Amino acid sequence: MTEMESRKAEARAWFESLRTRICEAFEAIEREAGSDASFDYQAWDREGEGVTPGPLEAGGGGGGVRGVMKGKVFEKVGVNVSTVGGAFSPEFAKQINGAADDPRFFATGISLVAHMANPHVPAVHMNTRFLVTTKSWFGGGADLNPPIPYEEDTQAFHARFRAACAPFGPDVYERYAKWADDYFFIPHRGVARGVGGIFYDHLESDSDTLFERNFALTRAVGEAFLDAYPPIVRKRMNADFTDADIHTQRVWRGRYAEFNLVHDRGTLFGLKTGGNIDAILMSLPPLAAWD
Amino acid sequence: MTEMESRKAEARAWFESLRTRICEAFEAIEREAGSDASFDYQAWDREGEGVTPGPLEAGGGGGGVRGVMKGKVFEKVGVNVSTVGGAFSPEFAKQINGAADDPRFFATGISLVAHMANPHVPAVHMNTRFLVTTKSWFGGGADLNPPIPYEEDTQAFHARFRAACAPFGPDVYERYAKWADDYFFIPHRGVARGVGGIFYDHLESDSDTLFERNFALTRAVGEAFLDAYPPIVRKRMNADFTDADIHTQRVWRGRYAEFNLVHDRGTLFGLKTGGNIDAILMSLPPLAAWD
Repeated sequence: MTEMESRKAEARAWFESLRTRICEAFEAIEREAGSDASFDYQAWDREGEGVTPGPLEAGGGGGGVRGVMKGKVFEKVGVNVSTVGGAFSPEFAKQINGAADDPRFFATGISLVAHMANPHVPAVHMNTRFLVTTKSWFGGGADLNPPIPYEEDTQAFHARFRAACAPFGPDVYERYAKWADDYFFIPHRGVARGVGGIFYDHLESDSDTLFERNFALTRAVGEAFLDAYPPIVRKRMNADFTDADIHTQRVWRGRYAEFNLVHDRGTLFGLKTGGNIDAILMSLPPLAAWD
Repeated sequence: MTEMESRKAEARAWFESLRTRICEAFEAIEREAGSDASFDYQAWDREGEGVTPGPLEAGGGGGGVRGVMKGKVFEKVGVNVSTVGGAFSPEFAKQINGAADDPRFFATGISLVAHMANPHVPAVHMNTRFLVTTKSWFGGGADLNPPIPYEEDTQAFHARFRAACAPFGPDVYERYAKWADDYFFIPHRGVARGVGGIFYDHLESDSDTLFERNFALTRAVGEAFLDAYPPIVRKRMNADFTDADIHTQRVWRGRYAEFNLVHDRGTLFGLKTGGNIDAILMSLPPLAAWD
């Protein structure tokens, strides 16, 4: 196995093990709420013109596993892992780091969006990935999306990501938090989509040192998510709410859907690379309102 | 007044009078259902960098009137008229007919989307417009979007537009119906967004003869809409429906929101030209579901 093949395999194994731990943590919360909801998993193959279905190792386009749980606390949560490869379309290749002259790519990652039943519990998004073209890099992020924000939840979420970033440099958290504020913004409304978090991309990882550093950062981000989010859910999941709170939640989810459909690069990447449509659009809310 | 100024004024007056007649027809249906709902009208000015607020005649960017009714039969219907002008951004100008070398534009039109309370009543869209750059043209269309389709409604809707198009040439309806099938299609789902209607664009109208022909066609399309849609509403508005029908309607509305946010050129045009965000996104459904 070449060094690059071993990096791809390591990254993939991490994303898949993180998926399993997150899904178990979320199912445990459902148990505490007296529900027996669990994740339903569906495997899918990458599709598209000239793509052979099947695993990458066998010359196919790869694919992924879409996990969905509809529970009592988690109204709808999707956790996807995917590992895909092939060649970008010539037009799309121009927009991708290191793909202008050689459109071949590999991508592995985890992507999660949770829409919560109780409007006092924030929705959340987390996604990390390892991309390989003629270059290779990590990217990812997580952001908190409360229909009804609580300053202490926002602080706790950010504090855990600040701690995760600290070993990687004194200004890493500030830069990535600022990047999240810039990215998770709905330009046509002129409003933030949530209360932020972190976002990073193109952490180039072509050397051993860089790969190790950026893979460690990406693992730290995954651990931070797993530490930070469940306590916020447990704190709010039994809060009383009104019909007006539910309406606030649904209108807020409409904004979230607008962001994902109009602006989100991950959604675009999925639609352009033959991702599974149900997996890509699993981020969309179970019920959204536009006044 | 120059010939072109008089064409702009004629087109605008037609769109505004059509708006008034449609809103009255829809309010009459609410009366029949025992509701006193009526349209609420909000005037807005075009905004954006370098745009002076106010009417075009006074050197401003123009604006429009957004009409919304939330009734018993019409869960949410928006009818907008707008008359705007100014200069496209250099990048956007390249994409617009006749604007590559001179970015100045004028646009007047009517745009309507109705989302209906009863899932047996089809939602509907209608939009017609007159655009002026270094060229001038009419465009527009209408399509029927039933969550639960009835073949006889589809036939009746298409028959009325076929009749409207007939005086303008033997193949006009077929061409415009095909154009609607191509346009009102959700590529990432591989499905039509509804049961079609008609769509046309760039009916160039630089001469008197062409202007008269295409303005007459556009008026005929407006009359066809006003004739065709209310009888379909009256036929279905008292039908019994189940929770499952409501769920079908909401999932179907999710697809509709996807089309408008990802693909619709009218939405893009509005967002790029400083249109009123509430008017542009008024097409979005009151309540949509994603499973």
